[in-house]
Amino acid sequence: MLSFPSSSPPGFSSYNGGGMNGTSTMMDFLEEPLPGVGTYEDFNTIDWVREKSRDRDRHREITSRSKESTWALIHSVSDAFSGWLLMLLIGLLAGSLAGLIDISAHWMTDLKEGVCLAGFWFNHEHCCWKSNTTFTDRDKCPEWKSWSQLILGHGEGAFAYILNYFMYVVWALLFSLLAVLLVKGFAPYACGSGIPEIKTILSGFIIRGYLGKWTLIIKTITLVLAVSSGLSLGKEGPLVHVACCCGNILCHLFTKYRKNEAKRREVLSAAAAAGVSVAFGAPIGGVLFSLEEVSYYFPLKTLWRSFFAALVAAFTLRSINPFGNSRLVLFYVEFHMPWHLLELVPFILLGIFGGLWGAFFIRSNIAWCRRRKTTKLGKYPVLEVFVVTAITALLAFPNEYTRMSTSELISELFNDCGILDSSKLCEYVNDFNSTKGDDLPDRAAGPGVYTAMWQLALALIMKVFITIFTFGMKVPSGLFIPSMLAYYHHDWAIFSGWCSQGADCITPGLYAMVGAAACLGGVTRMTVSLVVIMFELTGGLEYIVPLMAAAMTSKWVADAIGREGIYDAHIRLNGYPFLEAKEEFSHKTLAMDVMRPRRNDPPLTVITQDSMTVEDVESIINETTYSGYPVVVSRESQRLVGFVLRRDLIISIENARKKQDGIVSTSVIYFTDHSPPLPPSSPSMLKLRSILDLSPFTVTDQTPMEIVVDIFRKLGLRQCLVTHNGKLLGIITKKDVLKHIAQLANQDPDSILFN
Amino acid sequence: MLSFPSSSPPGFSSYNGGGMNGTSTMMDFLEEPLPGVGTYEDFNTIDWVREKSRDRDRHREITSRSKESTWALIHSVSDAFSGWLLMLLIGLLAGSLAGLIDISAHWMTDLKEGVCLAGFWFNHEHCCWKSNTTFTDRDKCPEWKSWSQLILGHGEGAFAYILNYFMYVVWALLFSLLAVLLVKGFAPYACGSGIPEIKTILSGFIIRGYLGKWTLIIKTITLVLAVSSGLSLGKEGPLVHVACCCGNILCHLFTKYRKNEAKRREVLSAAAAAGVSVAFGAPIGGVLFSLEEVSYYFPLKTLWRSFFAALVAAFTLRSINPFGNSRLVLFYVEFHMPWHLLELVPFILLGIFGGLWGAFFIRSNIAWCRRRKTTKLGKYPVLEVFVVTAITALLAFPNEYTRMSTSELISELFNDCGILDSSKLCEYVNDFNSTKGDDLPDRAAGPGVYTAMWQLALALIMKVFITIFTFGMKVPSGLFIPSMLAYYHHDWAIFSGWCSQGADCITPGLYAMVGAAACLGGVTRMTVSLVVIMFELTGGLEYIVPLMAAAMTSKWVADAIGREGIYDAHIRLNGYPFLEAKEEFSHKTLAMDVMRPRRNDPPLTVITQDSMTVEDVESIINETTYSGYPVVVSRESQRLVGFVLRRDLIISIENARKKQDGIVSTSVIYFTDHSPPLPPSSPSMLKLRSILDLSPFTVTDQTPMEIVVDIFRKLGLRQCLVTHNGKLLGIITKKDVLKHIAQLANQDPDSILFN
Repeated sequence: MLSFPSSSPPGFSSYNGGGMNGTSTMMDFLEEPLPGVGTYEDFNTIDWVREKSRDRDRHREITSRSKESTWALIHSVSDAFSGWLLMLLIGLLAGSLAGLIDISAHWMTDLKEGVCLAGFWFNHEHCCWKSNTTFTDRDKCPEWKSWSQLILGHGEGAFAYILNYFMYVVWALLFSLLAVLLVKGFAPYACGSGIPEIKTILSGFIIRGYLGKWTLIIKTITLVLAVSSGLSLGKEGPLVHVACCCGNILCHLFTKYRKNEAKRREVLSAAAAAGVSVAFGAPIGGVLFSLEEVSYYFPLKTLWRSFFAALVAAFTLRSINPFGNSRLVLFYVEFHMPWHLLELVPFILLGIFGGLWGAFFIRSNIAWCRRRKTTKLGKYPVLEVFVVTAITALLAFPNEYTRMSTSELISELFNDCGILDSSKLCEYVNDFNSTKGDDLPDRAAGPGVYTAMWQLALALIMKVFITIFTFGMKVPSGLFIPSMLAYYHHDWAIFSGWCSQGADCITPGLYAMVGAAACLGGVTRMTVSLVVIMFELTGGLEYIVPLMAAAMTSKWVADAIGREGIYDAHIRLNGYPFLEAKEEFSHKTLAMDVMRPRRNDPPLTVITQDSMTVEDVESIINETTYSGYPVVVSRESQRLVGFVLRRDLIISIENARKKQDGIVSTSVIYFTDHSPPLPPSSPSMLKLRSILDLSPFTVTDQTPMEIVVDIFRKLGLRQCLVTHNGKLLGIITKKDVLKHIAQLANQDPDSILFN
Repeated sequence: MLSFPSSSPPGFSSYNGGGMNGTSTMMDFLEEPLPGVGTYEDFNTIDWVREKSRDRDRHREITSRSKESTWALIHSVSDAFSGWLLMLLIGLLAGSLAGLIDISAHWMTDLKEGVCLAGFWFNHEHCCWKSNTTFTDRDKCPEWKSWSQLILGHGEGAFAYILNYFMYVVWALLFSLLAVLLVKGFAPYACGSGIPEIKTILSGFIIRGYLGKWTLIIKTITLVLAVSSGLSLGKEGPLVHVACCCGNILCHLFTKYRKNEAKRREVLSAAAAAGVSVAFGAPIGGVLFSLEEVSYYFPLKTLWRSFFAALVAAFTLRSINPFGNSRLVLFYVEFHMPWHLLELVPFILLGIFGGLWGAFFIRSNIAWCRRRKTTKLGKYPVLEVFVVTAITALLAFPNEYTRMSTSELISELFNDCGILDSSKLCEYVNDFNSTKGDDLPDRAAGPGVYTAMWQLALALIMKVFITIFTFGMKVPSGLFIPSMLAYYHHDWAIFSGWCSQGADCITPGLYAMVGAAACLGGVTRMTVSLVVIMFELTGGLEYIVPLMAAAMTSKWVADAIGREGIYDAHIRLNGYPFLEAKEEFSHKTLAMDVMRPRRNDPPLTVITQDSMTVEDVESIINETTYSGYPVVVSRESQRLVGFVLRRDLIISIENARKKQDGIVSTSVIYFTDHSPPLPPSSPSMLKLRSILDLSPFTVTDQTPMEIVVDIFRKLGLRQCLVTHNGKLLGIITKKDVLKHIAQLANQDPDSILFN
């Protein structure tokens, strides 16, 4: 398994650990640094300030050198453009992979129903294109054989139906079992939607291998399998994960991004935008999604680059043209009828329903996932997938609307009925004698519509329940499309009732669209990005107001029931150390209430700047597990000098013992500029100023926690020291902050996975 | 003139100045605070941390009270919804004002050419609607009389032409002089586009009256006058200013926003989005504009609210329907033809041209404005407006394309030629016999096209030069439309040449659109928001890639020539204290290089926590001009306790001398929790802990300035204290940071207007 790049082999890192201690590092910046100093361990959080500082040092270095030679100048220019080049590559790769996934999934979905005689690699639609005869009905084309036709030679009768049914279920089980076994065997991180983890990674957490090569390969394959198996899941979240893997892997091509965790996270934000862009054909929506939902640190530069990556990805996908309609958008709606102000009432009602559904879904899904996590159930993921797939396939086949793939269903629901439309949903009584040709809405609903209605209602109920159990299984699974789907049915039923009463009939596709937005809004709590995605998806610029009304209502309603969106809920369920930027910290606690040591604890472990020996420091390291230690002038004064990281300290001492002459256990370690005056008989001293962070962040003990939380969020800190009247008093780490927040919210503070 | 709300009469402010000193303020939070404590003076910068802290205190207060009574609960709920209500009001007001401005400007523009006999309040178009006869040509409708027809009784001949010409110039002069006199007499802040100032205000600066009642009224009136006078300016920037005035004034309705500078700035960000939304009919573009270009502090909550305000505003404008086409978008383009990949080459060329034009425009305009500022020219604003209007009007009338209003011209240019189109630009040779009906592009260009071409070329040259001199005059003026305009002509010429060669002819409107985007991109350096505005403006969702290609190229090219966009250039020209968030600070200086006192200066002025008398403190206040003083344990230890603001100190001492018994010049001031032990004979002591900020921000002297700049930007600080090994060493204010940046950029550090 590919490890997260910061675990790169020794010698890779060029960081000397003291990027922040000013001009003094300028001299030894070019010296060979100690391997490992300045890197992070797995499941640790990064220090944004230090990472950005390192990047600026690197940038300055290149700029100042660029005046020396032409080669250095070229290097400087190429460095400046490497970000854009990387975006181009990410866009191309993400777009191509998305195209590949779309085509394969389409083919394999059709494989469940039959096979093409002209060539088994054609899907149903392409097969019928190849066929020379003009075909009137999609299902009647001579080259395409359903399984019963292939095996029995005919497709009629009860036995043929049962055979088709059987083959459908078998294929579905085959696909899903293959998917779960691949995930289990090769890349455990490839399961799920990936968005909660990506949010956590982007906020500065390190999960090695989560965005690696193997995850990418296995996720791509299993995503196709999972979608084809007919499980109630979408490919949108996983596509974001796939795009982020692309971004992370391509980062290795450029030193600038390979070596810097903060810079890489900027790239990942842009990759997430590209992922949404290809999932929906919505580049602007993708950028806004990345901004609103996923990203943590999103400067304007990243905004521009994200947009570029999203556009390239969308454009690549368009060139591959997996849907065969040469449009960027997936479900292009043709209707452009204006809507009436009065219609806002049903739109808002849809929003309320969407919010309720969203809140209900999140609760049920989290309850189920918690049960899976805590009981024996979680030990049999393969069995679980088997059972869920079997139930899904068994229930799905008899109903026409669940048998077809979800995206086919959505485009059918979004469509406005034309007179010549053959879909059952459009089967109104066409009485051309009594009505004018363009007086479509007044036609009475035919029997097909009623059949469609109850089929859709059944499909709705089934999808709702199945999705609750599906999301969170050990296969790649997305949420978008299923939850978009859920509501269409419902509102379609509302609409149909309305329309058959003979009242003035309203564009049904619009209601489907608004219902979808409301539903997705309730589940994910997105607003602006959701609206933009919806109208990019459908091309309906006129319908911003209805979409917005539904999305806002849905968010309000759902927020009133439970504050968290599905991704945040899963982050909390998994205990990821994610510091939510949306919620205001509203409690009146002070830094002194949160800092360690607590009131009755032993005093803070500190290192003095020029009086401790190697032995002393080593015993401190062995006795404690803190990831860093404050350095003070003396224990008596407790005046703060700087902060030194445990990891850097261990590596430096080990290195000095091996390579530096005369370093023994009684050698004095000093962090000052000049060595302290010691008796001449003492062993040679060890200078460690280069690993000392001379500008640690400090707050006073009286600082309200709301400000401390704000500082942690905005500056991306890992720890912050607490002083009182200039004396060092304690330390607050990100873990302390998260535990404190969890405690105030009456949650178990120890649930947080953190180091 | 309406004063900025923080100058509200004494008694209004409910802030006790110590919002950050934790639980100790909980008790006296409800006590009557001293009037004036916690407010700001004009041309000062706000402390974001303190303001946000105050708002959280207020919020907590309301929440905790809400459990006590039903009334308090209602208050709490209404408080939570007041933000949304405010957005609704801003949207309604901004939308209505925009509609009013559009209608009035339309009418007055037509007034320059003639008058309607059916009622002088009808504009040309409405007048002809009223007319009962069916009219084939817009210009020939019996009710509408040009001035020559009205005065001479006929409209033919040289004399009639001269009379029309004369009336056109007279009206233009009348409008523009009225505008400049109104601005000069009533609201000097109403001039210009307002966007540089709004950016500065949003970053935390206080300019009293800039967003006041009078500015709103005068700006609305003069904007109509200036646009009607035919000056080369747009109404878009000023509409943002108008919307921000609405936002600021409506803030007075809600205590939450009236009393808090940070909360009000959130509202203003949303108002700016509403302004752009109504200017272009582009709600999403407005939000992105606010995010990318204008705002400083833009949390997700503001994103949602901005979107809501922008939608309401756009919807209100649509209901007023000033353009009479019931669409949300101003220049709806009908063409939906796909574009070819090869066309990217001319699009990128357009981008390069746009970038060059943008850089050239900024340089020339800034050079001219600097000259206006430094020479005698600036003393005669009325004369300047007179001359520029006269020249514009004289040059504009003979050319058909400059005579019509800019928005009319743009919609004409954006249009794709249909066969029945009467515009001169579409006058191809219609030879229906030899070509099929839909084979439009192959028609040879008729003589009308060539006439149109040179007229447009002339119009282009004229507009370019006039706009340089117009932007920055003492009338409300926007940039968008003029700079959008400039490029259409150019690319139209390119296109026409191309098309007449008989090669395959390309949608001309698309080139106009892309040219406009390139040009605006070069001037303002927007990217994402620009693309979104353009496609919302035109409804052309298919053309994101061309627009993006042009906008990015344009930005790159223009950035290579000069880093600043027009608004940033004007901010620097005016010396506003704006800390740019886009530029990375890239120098290797340390906090100790920037802090005061400098190396050879006298030591920092400090106040001790419990040993100085009222007299001592007053003499410090009188001898220095600093806006605040650090409080230390003792002069010897220099251990920091807190920070106290000059303004708060003056008000508190004055108040104590008046109202508190026994406070004389020899009274000791103490900031500690308990009074210090003093001889019993000494006069009564003054406790000032409540105005002491117990959590001042500190950095060490070794902190690189890049980190300090980052902290100032992200947390919105006003000052930051510098320590070394726990001892107070100096102070860095926002002014110091800005001066330092200016110095490093080889600019005059004293040009910055700041207190």
